[in-house]
Amino acid sequence: MTTTSRRQFLKTTGGVTLGMLAVSGMGSLLSSCSTEEKAAAIEVPWPYDKVDPELAAERAYERYYQGGCMYGGFEGVVGELKASVGAPYTAFPSVMMKYGGGGVAGWGSLCGALNGAAAAISLTSDPAVRNKIISELYAWYSMEALPTYKPKSPKFDSIQTSVAGSQLCHVSVTKWSNATGIATGDPQRAERCAWLTASVAKYTAELLNQQMDGTFALVHPVPAEVQSCLSCHGPEASVGNVHIKSQSDCIACHATVETDHPVP
Amino acid sequence: MTTTSRRQFLKTTGGVTLGMLAVSGMGSLLSSCSTEEKAAAIEVPWPYDKVDPELAAERAYERYYQGGCMYGGFEGVVGELKASVGAPYTAFPSVMMKYGGGGVAGWGSLCGALNGAAAAISLTSDPAVRNKIISELYAWYSMEALPTYKPKSPKFDSIQTSVAGSQLCHVSVTKWSNATGIATGDPQRAERCAWLTASVAKYTAELLNQQMDGTFALVHPVPAEVQSCLSCHGPEASVGNVHIKSQSDCIACHATVETDHPVP
Repeated sequence: MTTTSRRQFLKTTGGVTLGMLAVSGMGSLLSSCSTEEKAAAIEVPWPYDKVDPELAAERAYERYYQGGCMYGGFEGVVGELKASVGAPYTAFPSVMMKYGGGGVAGWGSLCGALNGAAAAISLTSDPAVRNKIISELYAWYSMEALPTYKPKSPKFDSIQTSVAGSQLCHVSVTKWSNATGIATGDPQRAERCAWLTASVAKYTAELLNQQMDGTFALVHPVPAEVQSCLSCHGPEASVGNVHIKSQSDCIACHATVETDHPVP
Repeated sequence: MTTTSRRQFLKTTGGVTLGMLAVSGMGSLLSSCSTEEKAAAIEVPWPYDKVDPELAAERAYERYYQGGCMYGGFEGVVGELKASVGAPYTAFPSVMMKYGGGGVAGWGSLCGALNGAAAAISLTSDPAVRNKIISELYAWYSMEALPTYKPKSPKFDSIQTSVAGSQLCHVSVTKWSNATGIATGDPQRAERCAWLTASVAKYTAELLNQQMDGTFALVHPVPAEVQSCLSCHGPEASVGNVHIKSQSDCIACHATVETDHPVP
């Protein structure tokens, strides 16, 4: 209902009875969001309340099988907030996050669990700390042996771990497939990604809870080797051809650097 | 108008009966979205109306400088829909998309313009066609010389183009930096990414408009060379270690394949 029509409504119904209000358009009045509710909802951060990391993981695992890794990574945290905080989360179209599955529409780019988790962090965090929380999550993802979380009702009893060395879907999955000898079309690979999505949602909830407690700290900083690369290739450096602020590993993709890099 | 001032408004303009309504709880009803409005907004697609591609490009360019490439790629299209369609777009927290700048928080992964555009496509498209539209956009991005759009009030009069051969921020920017000799910390690189974000928003609007007209078609399909790679490495194939459905180029990253790949 527009402002004009609401004013008109008030003008024409003021002083009449509740029964008449119902007949004369109260239904449509009740069906519109208030202006201030909209104004509040378009700003971030939205109110955060601590999320149980295990519940986030379980929800992420379930959502993975309903709509892929980005949907799972996002809903693991945001679905819990829909249940605990309510509005404005309850009005958010989480299903839109299904686009990020398989590194966005199967293109193998950014791991969807990481994309969805970053979106959830962005929705719930002060913009001044958002990138720090995302950076800790992204560094952890690429350096640790994952998945770390086993769901309560898994489809397989065990899933082998691997270290991705990257935030990319294609690299992460291929490293796991090469380590296990299991094809990416196998249901065990989907289960691995479901456990991984659960692991990402769990760590995201832990980081957001730490931030709320004032105990958040980077425990996976940019490694010295990467800093060494960026000291020449970073945005302001002498070569200056790399537009990256944080990274966990350059050699993972630039393996030949170890033998063919010119001596500085 | 705050809840308090609305109650005051109702009390002072509605006479005794509206005053009684306010007391009996109408104030709180008015301040919350209706159940059916929430239910409609959490499903996709949201109603789409044709977006002028040039206006999307101009808005994306402006938003890039306000919040980075993902914010620009998303708002280029969604900001236009906020203006033309209104609700539910007007209640969407577009600022959350600022997380995707520089390939998410400066990690150089997925190009933020592509991440934001895919999110906008997901919000406005039938899930059955979403991935096809994203795939055309992603293939176009990696194969064409970009940027293709020059804003009306640019910060630089000309920006050199380059072919990314990838959907990744790091690859896309480094290809451009190597081609131009301009460091990634230079304002011209930011301007290049702003033009690129505008170009992505423009093509996204064109694709969504085509979809609405029933004229959408893939004009950048998966190349034969990539299909050849996936015929062994794809999810269901003999090697089966790649979890990718669409890609524009494998050699861009796997350059040594041309010399060291075993003869099949």
